Amino acid sequence: MKQLEERILECGKYLGRGILKVDSFINHQVEPGLMDACGQEFARVFSDVKPTRILTAEISGIAPALMAGRHLNVPIVYARKTKPITMPDTVYLTVAPSHTKGNMTELIVSPEYLAGGEKVLIIDDFLASGATILGLVRLAEAAGAELVGIGTLIEKSFEGGRSALEHLGVPIVSLVTITRMDDTGIYFK
Amino acid sequence: MKQLEERILECGKYLGRGILKVDSFINHQVEPGLMDACGQEFARVFSDVKPTRILTAEISGIAPALMAGRHLNVPIVYARKTKPITMPDTVYLTVAPSHTKGNMTELIVSPEYLAGGEKVLIIDDFLASGATILGLVRLAEAAGAELVGIGTLIEKSFEGGRSALEHLGVPIVSLVTITRMDDTGIYFK
Repeated sequence: MKQLEERILECGKYLGRGILKVDSFINHQVEPGLMDACGQEFARVFSDVKPTRILTAEISGIAPALMAGRHLNVPIVYARKTKPITMPDTVYLTVAPSHTKGNMTELIVSPEYLAGGEKVLIIDDFLASGATILGLVRLAEAAGAELVGIGTLIEKSFEGGRSALEHLGVPIVSLVTITRMDDTGIYFK
Repeated sequence: MKQLEERILECGKYLGRGILKVDSFINHQVEPGLMDACGQEFARVFSDVKPTRILTAEISGIAPALMAGRHLNVPIVYARKTKPITMPDTVYLTVAPSHTKGNMTELIVSPEYLAGGEKVLIIDDFLASGATILGLVRLAEAAGAELVGIGTLIEKSFEGGRSALEHLGVPIVSLVTITRMDDTGIYFK
């Protein structure tokens, strides 16, 4: 997606150790117009798999998932990292390593909003190692829901996430794919 | 806002101790269409104060802020509760008591995205005691930004937040106002 590539080239910062800072338009400050265009693109590529729920992880998955949900006209559910007091005692919980924090993170979904028979599209900001997305896949499996697709804003193809997810047999779509980042720049597929 | 009132009556659950569960359409599962309508209403009431930034708090403020930002065509910034490695060493940080968790929460904003001269509209899901919103106000003040308005989806008028904020002298708009909740029901102004 050209618009997102251009924004990454203009405002993204390579911080070293595989980390791309996109805090000015995705991860801390968010540009609603750009995010809406990304949601529209997700809706275009995933409309034929007919999702009934979008599943994402708090925090930075919420914005792209919400905009995809707007264009696909389906509710989104974001996995919580801590269990709020409004959640029932029994929940779906899995753990996944956090790429940018270096520890394990819990991903928690209430069975009230993820049920057997749902067709789940997973949306997240980054596809890096695939660990968070695999955590979301396990939550969907635990609920007896059917996974129908995986969409991310930015794939870092050199971190191997796609091959970790390919066995799932669903379409995996990233709006932009970064093949290399170093001091000379950010390179797209 | 009639649509939000009806959804609260239909799907909200009073859990006791002043806690309203809206996890099925705002706080865990999110309905993009409803949230977009709320964003449109925020844009209608706040367009004349001409905000240049929307400030909110992760996690549950992101969805309404994003949709308000879409309709007002301004970026949103969500205060983080933990400092990610992508943030600079020096940040704006304040602490606020968490209503639903019972502890103190940090609210952190990078000076990169909140600067003097900005006209800041604060958007959040709930106006209860006003503690989180006062935390966001302190962040805006620390940045030298001008506060131009405060908007929330749901005000619980019996928790006194409005009187804690009135000295700020800006418009405070809640899309719905709950005056009482008990075992007999949820009552709106």
